[in-house]
Amino acid sequence: MGKLLIVGTVAFDAIETPFGKTDKILGGAATFIGLAASQFNIDCAIVSVVGEDFPKKYLDLFTQKNIDISSLKVVKGGKTFYWSGKYHNDLNVRDTLATELNVLADFNPIVPENFKDADVVMLGNLHPNIQMSVINQMEDRPKLIVLDTMNYWMDHTLKELMTVIGQIDVIAINDEEARQLTEEYSLVKAAAKIQKMGPRYVVIKKGEHGALLFHKNKVFFAPALPLDEVFDPTGAGDTFAGGFAGYLAESENISFNNLKRAVIHGSNLASFCVERFGTERIQQLDREEVNQRMDRFKELTKFDIKLK
Amino acid sequence: MGKLLIVGTVAFDAIETPFGKTDKILGGAATFIGLAASQFNIDCAIVSVVGEDFPKKYLDLFTQKNIDISSLKVVKGGKTFYWSGKYHNDLNVRDTLATELNVLADFNPIVPENFKDADVVMLGNLHPNIQMSVINQMEDRPKLIVLDTMNYWMDHTLKELMTVIGQIDVIAINDEEARQLTEEYSLVKAAAKIQKMGPRYVVIKKGEHGALLFHKNKVFFAPALPLDEVFDPTGAGDTFAGGFAGYLAESENISFNNLKRAVIHGSNLASFCVERFGTERIQQLDREEVNQRMDRFKELTKFDIKLK
Repeated sequence: MGKLLIVGTVAFDAIETPFGKTDKILGGAATFIGLAASQFNIDCAIVSVVGEDFPKKYLDLFTQKNIDISSLKVVKGGKTFYWSGKYHNDLNVRDTLATELNVLADFNPIVPENFKDADVVMLGNLHPNIQMSVINQMEDRPKLIVLDTMNYWMDHTLKELMTVIGQIDVIAINDEEARQLTEEYSLVKAAAKIQKMGPRYVVIKKGEHGALLFHKNKVFFAPALPLDEVFDPTGAGDTFAGGFAGYLAESENISFNNLKRAVIHGSNLASFCVERFGTERIQQLDREEVNQRMDRFKELTKFDIKLK
Repeated sequence: MGKLLIVGTVAFDAIETPFGKTDKILGGAATFIGLAASQFNIDCAIVSVVGEDFPKKYLDLFTQKNIDISSLKVVKGGKTFYWSGKYHNDLNVRDTLATELNVLADFNPIVPENFKDADVVMLGNLHPNIQMSVINQMEDRPKLIVLDTMNYWMDHTLKELMTVIGQIDVIAINDEEARQLTEEYSLVKAAAKIQKMGPRYVVIKKGEHGALLFHKNKVFFAPALPLDEVFDPTGAGDTFAGGFAGYLAESENISFNNLKRAVIHGSNLASFCVERFGTERIQQLDREEVNQRMDRFKELTKFDIKLK
């Protein structure tokens, strides 16, 4: 059984989509990553920080899912990181309405002793210095370090971000971020440039259009499952990352063929995430419905062509 | 050997992309459709109209590709349909700089006698009354009628368009057009609504993000091949349609499994189209490079997951 260490935000989200609106609900990158990863047979811990306003029921949820939260620090008198966003009719576009860092402003991640030998480290989207601090606390070089980041860090802390990118094995970013990071329009060229920066594997997330995995001169494409209802895209990218990293921690195999499977597992779990607000859907997943949907993924791109 | 009848524009295009600019070059929906379809072992004819300014070398090109142009009317003293467009850095967005209908304004399509029993009819993007006129001239109901159209006809001639949609078997439109036609954001719901309008099969083209094929409650996804260079997207959708219709005319099998293959053949040929300006690349394709690229398509989405 492999060990997965997750660092990332645990947060309150308030979300508005064309289909409805929420008050403050459970959110944050590490939350979605952890809930997705908990589908796999692994030891898993979250390193993060919340305020005293963070409900005990959410902490209990992590514990029920067998997620180690001994390094999820609760700051006395502090307030939990809060994000609010509104999606347009085109769910690919969103406005941020509010970002309150609160306790996240002084977050100093402490890796639990029993996870300093984790097999896989999943660095959720955060300040690159926090991500680097986690890497530096590992006793053994993990088998695989996976990085998520975003355009904000490219704009404001590019030097620090490049240091992290030089230390990791897999980067998972969206198409626009890959283009910004490399100044290449072609994703094939962008992925080649990123591999020269450090990561052996480049995952380019395209939301409803699926995800691409690049390694050397090879490429793999995982579609997103076309859904009847897309309700709220919040957390889909993190759920993808959690499924990806969770599967790799369980299987302890980092070949290209196994990373393909990891991308499919990530896409499969992400397809559930968007069907309800926030974590609602992925809190309640059972193995059977996950497996049934995997069968639909297999059918989705299957064809046989015999060339003459 | 099946018969494919194509109706659509034969035109001059002038194109500007971030990578270069052309004078008037060979363009038009029927041109791309015909050149793509000529990759298959079929009898193929184009019904269209051009002016006296249309160069003989272009007519000769069609003839060399074994495309019957006896119903490609050359109007004495007339000028060929002309379109000019400019693509932005994001190649998914383009501005139309000029549209001169010229001889297309009075186009009255005449189906050649020897193609009134065509197996497959490919209706390229045109006024729906012209498309309907072609359907009405067929002596036998074709095995398959494929329709391309665009938002312009939804805005201006919806009633006429709906009459055509009620008569055809496959509609091939892009995601925005599918959403406009049905007022459904979810492509799954949009495809279900369109099937109720007439077509048994719905193909939704998503450009660099691939294409979806819907039939009853089944769905198939064909990725677009990630390319080093995307030079000019003009004609990619028509090349896709030509490969799709050409393969179906050759194989004379309209099962869902065979339509999947047709979508892949279309995507494969479209991936060549975008690598050069206009028809440059697809004029010169040889069977070997087409087959080699098909192998890359097969690899692109292949994975094996065994569930416990």
